[in-house]
Amino acid sequence: MGEEVLRVAFQGERGAYSEEAAVKFFGESIEPVPNQSFDQVFEQVESGASQYGIVPIENSLAGSIHRNYDLLLRHNLHVVGEIAIRIVHCLIVNRGVSLEQVRKVQSHPQALAQCERSLARWPHIERVTAYDTAGSVKLLKESGAQDEAAIASRRAAEIYDMDILIDGLEDDQENYTRFLILHREAVKTDGPSKTSIVFSMDNVPGALFKTLAVFALRDIDLTKIESRPLQGKPWEYFFYLDFAGGLHEERCQKAISHLGEIAKFLRILGSYPRSV
Amino acid sequence: MGEEVLRVAFQGERGAYSEEAAVKFFGESIEPVPNQSFDQVFEQVESGASQYGIVPIENSLAGSIHRNYDLLLRHNLHVVGEIAIRIVHCLIVNRGVSLEQVRKVQSHPQALAQCERSLARWPHIERVTAYDTAGSVKLLKESGAQDEAAIASRRAAEIYDMDILIDGLEDDQENYTRFLILHREAVKTDGPSKTSIVFSMDNVPGALFKTLAVFALRDIDLTKIESRPLQGKPWEYFFYLDFAGGLHEERCQKAISHLGEIAKFLRILGSYPRSV
Repeated sequence: MGEEVLRVAFQGERGAYSEEAAVKFFGESIEPVPNQSFDQVFEQVESGASQYGIVPIENSLAGSIHRNYDLLLRHNLHVVGEIAIRIVHCLIVNRGVSLEQVRKVQSHPQALAQCERSLARWPHIERVTAYDTAGSVKLLKESGAQDEAAIASRRAAEIYDMDILIDGLEDDQENYTRFLILHREAVKTDGPSKTSIVFSMDNVPGALFKTLAVFALRDIDLTKIESRPLQGKPWEYFFYLDFAGGLHEERCQKAISHLGEIAKFLRILGSYPRSV
Repeated sequence: MGEEVLRVAFQGERGAYSEEAAVKFFGESIEPVPNQSFDQVFEQVESGASQYGIVPIENSLAGSIHRNYDLLLRHNLHVVGEIAIRIVHCLIVNRGVSLEQVRKVQSHPQALAQCERSLARWPHIERVTAYDTAGSVKLLKESGAQDEAAIASRRAAEIYDMDILIDGLEDDQENYTRFLILHREAVKTDGPSKTSIVFSMDNVPGALFKTLAVFALRDIDLTKIESRPLQGKPWEYFFYLDFAGGLHEERCQKAISHLGEIAKFLRILGSYPRSV
């Protein structure tokens, strides 16, 4: 009896940064399952077609991926882990192509923007936007073009068997993306943990202050707050909070129960081991 | 001596929703100055090329326009007003074209998404994404195509002298966008006002709670909170707060001064008449 291979759904083509994060979290033995959209990643896990999903939730330069906050609320999955990776952009070409031959570079607009100063060294190289970082490597491999490059992860270069001309093209090295691991079942926490919740309040003065008091009064540290519009109620919001602590801790359970007394809506998205 | 015509910079082509908001705020006698990017709108006002700028900051369905939060911090302009408009999407065609002739509809991806259910009535009509709502009307006018439509504001149809086949194509009528008015000088408030600030804190437990206490203890109502990544400091944030009240009110001045004691960085983006 062999062990079942874990299927992990992610958005993008093989070699995407999400795949890199999945491998860092689960190890190399997983089966990465590429998907076109974040919606499909959630659906894959909900249907059981993949046991786990992984989605980016926040980049240290560009901010939150708001679409995934909305999808967390729309779907009934549990956050069971988090992992952050440093985003290292590579300049990738077909085998044997040299920098002097490159006239065009393609990638996702955000990757191009994050390499803007580096690319300014070669003003003759035209930037072309693509739907995906790893996808632009895949396209380049298929076309076999000798005068083009793509910007993507080292892993993408390996998967498509391409050359890396520059490893670390990004302008700002403090470029990290944090990913959430999604699963149909919740996990039990014991060590250092984090809990993600979403709630809404009656639109009255001081409402947000009261909700934060629930945590502050118990010395629970908030690590992230995000607001998203409440559909159908202009200028009212859902608040997404991450706090340090797990549901195995009594003070966290009490804080959640206290918040339940004052929130109009409250859902625990997950309580999971905190990434270091 | 005639009065000087106010030049108001906005992003998009003539007839954009931003232009509609500008006219609602300033009246019909302004000179609307179209710009390709939000960055250019800020630069236009900073250089004095336009006296005012107007930028969307928040849509009641899609959420905040984060780029403009970042630009508020990067530029030294003052928020001097706000205005919200309801987004009414129109199905626009060249003069004389009927719904039966239409095979293609083009607009900004967000406008197409907001009309998805309405458009599902005509599955044979292909959706084409364009860079801009009003821009897609301008392109349609230039091409003269008889089998295409565009989705944009009523104002865009008027400006380009086009027919409106359907007025109110959006799926959800609770679709509002709030805009900020930008100027080189601050305004003095007196009546019902709003104040927008941005600040950062040392990354210590309870920091956000303490900043909200500054307002809650003075019964000052927060209307919006937004966080954006602090460049170069992964997982630290700038917080943008809007609160009800103006700098002419002593309690608001005291709250700001109290916040100054505990914040690492604090800037007042503007204190301005509150839109009703």
